Amino acid sequence: MSKSEYMTYEQSGVSIDAGDRMVGHIAGAVASTHGPRVITLENGFAGLFRLDYDEKLFKRNYKNPVLVACTDGVGTKIKIGQMINRYDTVGIDLVAMNVNDMIVHGAEPLFFLDYLAVNKLEPESIAQTVEGVAAGCKQANCALIGGETAEMPDIYRRGEFDMAGFAVGVVERGKIITGANVQKGDVILGLASSGLHSNGYTLARDICFNKAGLKVTDTIDELEGAVLGDVLLEPTRIYVKPIVKLLAQYRVKKVVRAMAHITGGGLLGNIPRVLPKICNAVIKKSNWPVSEVFSFLQETGPVEESEMFRVFNMGIGFVLIVAPDFASSIAKKLKRYGETVYKIGTITAGTGKVVLK
Amino acid sequence: MSKSEYMTYEQSGVSIDAGDRMVGHIAGAVASTHGPRVITLENGFAGLFRLDYDEKLFKRNYKNPVLVACTDGVGTKIKIGQMINRYDTVGIDLVAMNVNDMIVHGAEPLFFLDYLAVNKLEPESIAQTVEGVAAGCKQANCALIGGETAEMPDIYRRGEFDMAGFAVGVVERGKIITGANVQKGDVILGLASSGLHSNGYTLARDICFNKAGLKVTDTIDELEGAVLGDVLLEPTRIYVKPIVKLLAQYRVKKVVRAMAHITGGGLLGNIPRVLPKICNAVIKKSNWPVSEVFSFLQETGPVEESEMFRVFNMGIGFVLIVAPDFASSIAKKLKRYGETVYKIGTITAGTGKVVLK
Repeated sequence: MSKSEYMTYEQSGVSIDAGDRMVGHIAGAVASTHGPRVITLENGFAGLFRLDYDEKLFKRNYKNPVLVACTDGVGTKIKIGQMINRYDTVGIDLVAMNVNDMIVHGAEPLFFLDYLAVNKLEPESIAQTVEGVAAGCKQANCALIGGETAEMPDIYRRGEFDMAGFAVGVVERGKIITGANVQKGDVILGLASSGLHSNGYTLARDICFNKAGLKVTDTIDELEGAVLGDVLLEPTRIYVKPIVKLLAQYRVKKVVRAMAHITGGGLLGNIPRVLPKICNAVIKKSNWPVSEVFSFLQETGPVEESEMFRVFNMGIGFVLIVAPDFASSIAKKLKRYGETVYKIGTITAGTGKVVLK
Repeated sequence: MSKSEYMTYEQSGVSIDAGDRMVGHIAGAVASTHGPRVITLENGFAGLFRLDYDEKLFKRNYKNPVLVACTDGVGTKIKIGQMINRYDTVGIDLVAMNVNDMIVHGAEPLFFLDYLAVNKLEPESIAQTVEGVAAGCKQANCALIGGETAEMPDIYRRGEFDMAGFAVGVVERGKIITGANVQKGDVILGLASSGLHSNGYTLARDICFNKAGLKVTDTIDELEGAVLGDVLLEPTRIYVKPIVKLLAQYRVKKVVRAMAHITGGGLLGNIPRVLPKICNAVIKKSNWPVSEVFSFLQETGPVEESEMFRVFNMGIGFVLIVAPDFASSIAKKLKRYGETVYKIGTITAGTGKVVLK
């Protein structure tokens, strides 16, 4: 029997060599996220990260460390990247979706891993994607210590891919923030989002491409002539550095009572996750300017305003519920750290709900 | 404008309520994996796991802990589950692929997170899948502390789904096993696999369904009349308990010199990952019985034997390279812990390769 009659793995659709080439591509980007706590193993089966308990710095910070772990993807935002063949930013979104969740509980990110699944390994686009992940890790002060790229031609359509991220961080046990201390009179601060972040893309794509018949390359008058694809691909803002820095300023846990990362479900869905059942969060919509991209989607749909608030972040990507006496000084600090901060509401007696006014 | 003209998230293909229903379904299975180190947050943004440094037991075990993290999927094995509409075991495979990687470096698993992405949320099949993940976590002595289920109708075909897993464990810094101590004369022990585990499914499916035109429901004479779907869906063996128990017996790091989890690339691809460049691993094929499923695939393809060894585990799912003086006592212990153990080869001087004899 001649060689060509034998079936091989490559013929059945999986290319091992392309995978190897790609690993070379991304090694530099990955290594750039590594600090001294990463232990590098050539061809290792796992990523290794020292907790450094024998070092003074760490010892002082964590007497009773709790590991905090998150997993999330970026939803169908990756489809926008595919449409304009740009993969350098969705990795930032992937990191953002995970680390912004983690800091809600007071944790600081330590390390990150990514899982990419594709129809066919295209070393260049995978390398772009992982470079984005590495860029996100740098913004979040965490090390990219592992990842997996799976080639699955039978599950993903030609050109399709998906990605999942995993982040691990640490928080001192006595400083875990859960929202249990939220009380009547507390002030709700909102940090501006950079756009849609990574939620609501199924609806946004439906509005733009099916309903309005737009193309990703179209310029949008209502958005000051910006290219639609660029607007939709704007990376998710990563709030790690300002929040970690802020929390380090306060020894008392009760100053920042709760935080929420505004993802799927919007302000209406995410704030209740950290509200005691005896409080409401009263949000005044006029207290911040809703970014033009949301008005554009709302009018183009059209979509009811209540649905907009249930699906999109509407301009607020992260929320802090703080003790009233500290509200202005916290807002001032966060502005100094580069955030755009709005006082978007207050806590009242209630039943664990968000009331939009 | 009437209500029905408004676009909603549900109309565009994402069902938020189905997601909520599903969360209720799986809560019990998830909670069953939790020990006292898991901190439960209702609706939390992240999973929390105590490192317990203030407790005697942990203090004694880890003076200088290193976190070990892995991410992996199960490849296209999930397609077999879809074909016979059985999702209760692929979660075990998902855990196995990650925790078997981690123990290679001497770590013990602490916790696990899963990411499931589907075309459409079907609460029953998702619940089955997560129950499988929970069963795997119990086998691996780790807690399932988080997960994400993403509904993405535009990325996954109808009925298609994918899953990624993420495991974190811990190892004492001085006890990390890397293979650096492997030397001439060491003995290679192989632990029997339970079948294909989670690799080579693109080729296996191609052989069975395209080439041979079989159906998942067919019974296979060469496999003692077993149903093809059941054979292909056999869960990946989890080696955590025997390996963690074994390593706890030896204070000296040099007894177990290296280990390898035999995944994609087979013995040929995975053993070199822990071999020094001055050693070869000489493997004697006749030292263990290749399971019938591999002979069946090889003949049905047909597939060259060398390609079989490059794609499949060929009956050996996990390998230990051990000091010769300890080889028989280690084999004896592992048998006592329930493993089927073969002496499959020895280490010689060489160039970092596997030589099949």
